[in-house]
Amino acid sequence: MSIEQTVLEIAKRARKASLELANLDAAKKNAALLKIAVNLRQSASLILRENRKDVHEASVAGLSKPMIERLSLDEAKIEKMALGVEEVAALPDYVGEIIESIVRPNGIKIDKVRVPIGVIGIIYESRPNVTVDCAALCLKSGNAAILRGGKECFNTNLVLAALISNALDACGIPESAVQILPTSDRAALTAMLKLDTYINCIIPRGGEGLIRFVAENSTIPVIKHYKGVCNVYIDKFADLKTALNIAVDAKCQRPSVCNAAENLIAHKDAVPVFLKVAEALSARGVEIRATKDVKELLLENGIRALDASPEDFDTEYGDLIIAADIVESLPAAIDFVNAHSSAHSDCIVTQDAQRAEEFLNGVDSATVYWNASTRFTDGFEFGFGAEIGISTDKLHARGPMGLKELNSYKYKIRGEGQTRGKPALL
Amino acid sequence: MSIEQTVLEIAKRARKASLELANLDAAKKNAALLKIAVNLRQSASLILRENRKDVHEASVAGLSKPMIERLSLDEAKIEKMALGVEEVAALPDYVGEIIESIVRPNGIKIDKVRVPIGVIGIIYESRPNVTVDCAALCLKSGNAAILRGGKECFNTNLVLAALISNALDACGIPESAVQILPTSDRAALTAMLKLDTYINCIIPRGGEGLIRFVAENSTIPVIKHYKGVCNVYIDKFADLKTALNIAVDAKCQRPSVCNAAENLIAHKDAVPVFLKVAEALSARGVEIRATKDVKELLLENGIRALDASPEDFDTEYGDLIIAADIVESLPAAIDFVNAHSSAHSDCIVTQDAQRAEEFLNGVDSATVYWNASTRFTDGFEFGFGAEIGISTDKLHARGPMGLKELNSYKYKIRGEGQTRGKPALL
Repeated sequence: MSIEQTVLEIAKRARKASLELANLDAAKKNAALLKIAVNLRQSASLILRENRKDVHEASVAGLSKPMIERLSLDEAKIEKMALGVEEVAALPDYVGEIIESIVRPNGIKIDKVRVPIGVIGIIYESRPNVTVDCAALCLKSGNAAILRGGKECFNTNLVLAALISNALDACGIPESAVQILPTSDRAALTAMLKLDTYINCIIPRGGEGLIRFVAENSTIPVIKHYKGVCNVYIDKFADLKTALNIAVDAKCQRPSVCNAAENLIAHKDAVPVFLKVAEALSARGVEIRATKDVKELLLENGIRALDASPEDFDTEYGDLIIAADIVESLPAAIDFVNAHSSAHSDCIVTQDAQRAEEFLNGVDSATVYWNASTRFTDGFEFGFGAEIGISTDKLHARGPMGLKELNSYKYKIRGEGQTRGKPALL
Repeated sequence: MSIEQTVLEIAKRARKASLELANLDAAKKNAALLKIAVNLRQSASLILRENRKDVHEASVAGLSKPMIERLSLDEAKIEKMALGVEEVAALPDYVGEIIESIVRPNGIKIDKVRVPIGVIGIIYESRPNVTVDCAALCLKSGNAAILRGGKECFNTNLVLAALISNALDACGIPESAVQILPTSDRAALTAMLKLDTYINCIIPRGGEGLIRFVAENSTIPVIKHYKGVCNVYIDKFADLKTALNIAVDAKCQRPSVCNAAENLIAHKDAVPVFLKVAEALSARGVEIRATKDVKELLLENGIRALDASPEDFDTEYGDLIIAADIVESLPAAIDFVNAHSSAHSDCIVTQDAQRAEEFLNGVDSATVYWNASTRFTDGFEFGFGAEIGISTDKLHARGPMGLKELNSYKYKIRGEGQTRGKPALL
């Protein structure tokens, strides 16, 4: 069988399973989730053996240390995966929930009901925990999943998929509810992205290059964020302590993640606060890149700074680097954010409620903050209990995506023979 | 300027306008809508003059009579357009509505707020009323619109767009809130479909060929339905009168539309009802195409029938033709519908509530009916007060799309200096 045929068969099986999954009761899905957790724990040594193969090949191939670290499993990481699956089992099941009910003057009753999306393809890089997390979230939300992880993780993913299939089968759920692409060939991915007849949604996670490849080659709707260029704006009426705490948290608490700040901008009347914040960042090892005048201002005040290139304000560093600038006004700050933000998470620090509202309304991003760190953009922090990703798209889901965002809806309409025109028989 | 540059400039202006539109109050939007209605009425003769040019060119080009009819305007049709705009003005404004509020244990308050999608591109064929309808719906829902109508309608659309711009300008709304592609060149459409930096959503309306072209060439998310292959299933426990009324209404009341039925299937124990329904359809001039055994059964009972090809069950006739088959069981009916339906609107006729629920749950379509005609799938019939299209996609919007479906949401988060990690300053 060609790669294209193999992928087509996988997609067809997923579609078939999805129709069954759509009407499974919560108890059955939860039993399977708990069984997955059991399997992970019982087969920890098997998982570790396969994982060592991947790690060995990655070392031989000369992968970077952080990449190998992300790829490597140990007993504790496997236990964490199992706990994660148990947490998903404990979450509510939203499938079947009536979102809205309408009774029309002609008596037809229209229920808008939450249903699974159907078949979801998840494309990711080399973190084995993503395999288990995504399988669990898709299963709980009633979706069939086709998983395509990075090639560096291939052996680990195969064994994880086998353990998941085993659990599904033991609980009377079609094994093909969770499938993994059996090859890390790029051709398989490309073939998968064209199967819009069977696959309803693609969620790519990983680097911008991978996500762009997926978005450009997919005929299936994609939910994604390319990158996280988040902005912290220190307003004219900012409180020093609030500004300092938020900027330091947003930049330094975990610089590698997408909700970390990459740009720091300040109102021209907030220069004293800006300097204190810059000093605090610099003291924590943050490299500040600023426009010419701002750089000079920083240097005059004994704060280390480098020249910013225009691209710096559009760059996700994922590191202890921040681009800084000073703006003339609040509208200029909003324009700056709308021009440079990746529309992920942006924050205003101010004590003035009206100016805060202007920022919250004017900034066209998925999550906009007043006096709180951008680091809160996260399904767990929002109380969703889970997260399959974060969307900077404007259709379907925006911001953190939990179980509800993995659902669609259908309209169920119940009548007593109503017709649009005059009935044929009275 | 090249076509690509022209389209890029239009898209940039639309994006800029969209940021302003997002925060316009309802009164201002409604004033502009009412002014559009005034302009349409006052400039009726101008519109008719431009429309006559299009109709003349279409006649010379040898367009079909129904196409020319759709293209042609008269005083009454212009009045209808103006009334439609006034109706949109009278609808509620959902922008800014708080959909959900969450207060987290750390005190941050998360409001999920309805916001416009941003810039919407609408691709359609040669109905001038679509230009006005879509402009009105986008404006009311706070979106900037880029309209690309069929080339046959080009002169009419230009004058309609000018009248809309004039109304916007008179009410202090950026003219570029509604723009029309100033050329009917296919290259302009192709260029537009790649501008995902500025355009947030594409809604194609028209024939399947046009919609496929858009879906395959767009890097912008598309909301669409390719076609309407709707099914009416007559169950074992169907009531004769209900079956007959629904089948006749679904097939004959307006056969050219997407929510009309194209397939009639019946349970093997419902043959007497099926025959009465087929007779009633045949008496109304419906051509019945059936599988071999079913055709013979119909002929034996004196009902005219032709052979159905396998493709017939996947075809949108838009005409007085229906494909018919008999199935062994309710699950077989559900499988039939999931295999052949375009996932638009499907109906079960039965007196058995449990079997109805099985059908409503099992059929994977946007709208599923129990004892009511598929012809009700429509924004007005659902009480949305408006409709920009119908979606058979599973992301964002499914079924009829009104003003709410033209909105996205954002999360506004208000805090008091909360940080994810330990604060730098206590």
